Amino acid sequence: MLKTVEITTKKRIEFIDVTSIVRQAVTESSVRDGICVVYVPHTTCGITINEHADPDVVRDIIYQLEKIVPESGSYNHIEGNSDAHIKASMIGSSESIIISDSKLMLGVWQGIFLCEFDGPRKRYLYIKTLEG
Amino acid sequence: MLKTVEITTKKRIEFIDVTSIVRQAVTESSVRDGICVVYVPHTTCGITINEHADPDVVRDIIYQLEKIVPESGSYNHIEGNSDAHIKASMIGSSESIIISDSKLMLGVWQGIFLCEFDGPRKRYLYIKTLEG
Amino acid sequence: MLKTVEITTKKRIEFIDVTSIVRQAVTESSVRDGICVVYVPHTTCGITINEHADPDVVRDIIYQLEKIVPESGSYNHIEGNSDAHIKASMIGSSESIIISDSKLMLGVWQGIFLCEFDGPRKRYLYIKTLEG
Repeated sequence: MLKTVEITTKKRIEFIDVTSIVRQAVTESSVRDGICVVYVPHTTCGITINEHADPDVVRDIIYQLEKIVPESGSYNHIEGNSDAHIKASMIGSSESIIISDSKLMLGVWQGIFLCEFDGPRKRYLYIKTLEG
Repeated sequence: MLKTVEITTKKRIEFIDVTSIVRQAVTESSVRDGICVVYVPHTTCGITINEHADPDVVRDIIYQLEKIVPESGSYNHIEGNSDAHIKASMIGSSESIIISDSKLMLGVWQGIFLCEFDGPRKRYLYIKTLEG
Repeated sequence: MLKTVEITTKKRIEFIDVTSIVRQAVTESSVRDGICVVYVPHTTCGITINEHADPDVVRDIIYQLEKIVPESGSYNHIEGNSDAHIKASMIGSSESIIISDSKLMLGVWQGIFLCEFDGPRKRYLYIKTLEG
C-alpha cells in the first residue's frame, strides 16, 4: 500500500515527528510482516530516525547541522538555499523500517522525522508498505 | 529484476545523473507497484537523491563535502583516499524509491546520482526492483 | 525472515563488523532473490557499509566524524550524548543490500558495520530478508 500525506512546515529548519502518521499507515495496510519505506519527494527535505522523547535531541541535531553546513557560504546555486540541498543529501531522502506482526519495529526511543531544511512549505510524505 | 549497469567516471569527485538509467530499468522490469533499490558495490562511492535541474546544486554539495571532509587530513589509511571512504559513509551506499503504477515516484526536482569520490574509475550500479 | 542479533560493544565509539552475521542470516532465510534490510533500533547507533579489509578506513571515518561532531559542544540534551545522536542521523539507521542467487551482493571490499556512538552497551541488530 502507498499512502501520501501532506505536511505543512512552519519554520526554515524544523524536524516534524511523523511517527504516529507512519504507524497509522502501517495499521491501515494489510501488511503483517515486511518493510515500510518512508520517503520525501523533495530536494530540500530529508527523513531521519532519532530520539523523540527529549526535544533537545532534535534541537542539537539541527544546531550541529547548521554549524557543519551554514546557511551562507561560497555557494553558486542562485536560489540561495544550497545549505538545504546539502543537508538533505547528508540526511537522505528515505528510511526503511521493518514490520513484524503488523507492528513497526522501532526502538523504544526511536521516532521518525520529516526534516524540513527550507521551509515553511507544504510538503508530501510517501509511506509505502510491502509484505514479505 | 536486478540490472547491473557499468558507469565510467571522469573526475576524482563527480556526481553522475543516473535517473534515466534507473527509470529505464523500472520500465524493463514487470514491476507495477513496489520499490526500487539503487545500490553501489564500492566503498568510495555513494548514492544520493537531489536536484538535477541546476548543476550548481551538485557543485555546491561537492564543495561543502570537500570542506567538511578535506582530501588531506590526519588519516592513517595507506591508499590516501580516506576522504572518499568517509564521504561514502556520510552519503550512503543506496537509496530506495517507491514504484507506483509502473513509475518511479521521484519528486519534480529529484534526480538520482551516483557519487564518485575517488575517480576516475569504472563503476557498477545495481538496480533492483521488487513488486509488493 | 526477521532475525534479531545481540551485539555487545566495548568502547564509546566503535564500528563492529557484522558482515558474516548478516551473510549467515541470508543463508538461513529461504530468500533466493530479494533484498536484506539491516536495521538498528537505537538512537545513538548507525549502520554503514564501507571497507573492512584495512581497519584504518574505519579508524579514519571515526576520526573525521569526531572532528565534525565533537563530543563536547553547545548541546542542550541533558544526557550528554548529543554527539552520538547527531552522528547516528548522519550515518542512518539502516542499509538495504540486494540478494541475488541466495547471495548478498556486497562489493569485493564492502563490509557491513554497526556503528556504536555511545557505548559500551548491549545493542540489537535486526536483519530482515524479503523475496522479490
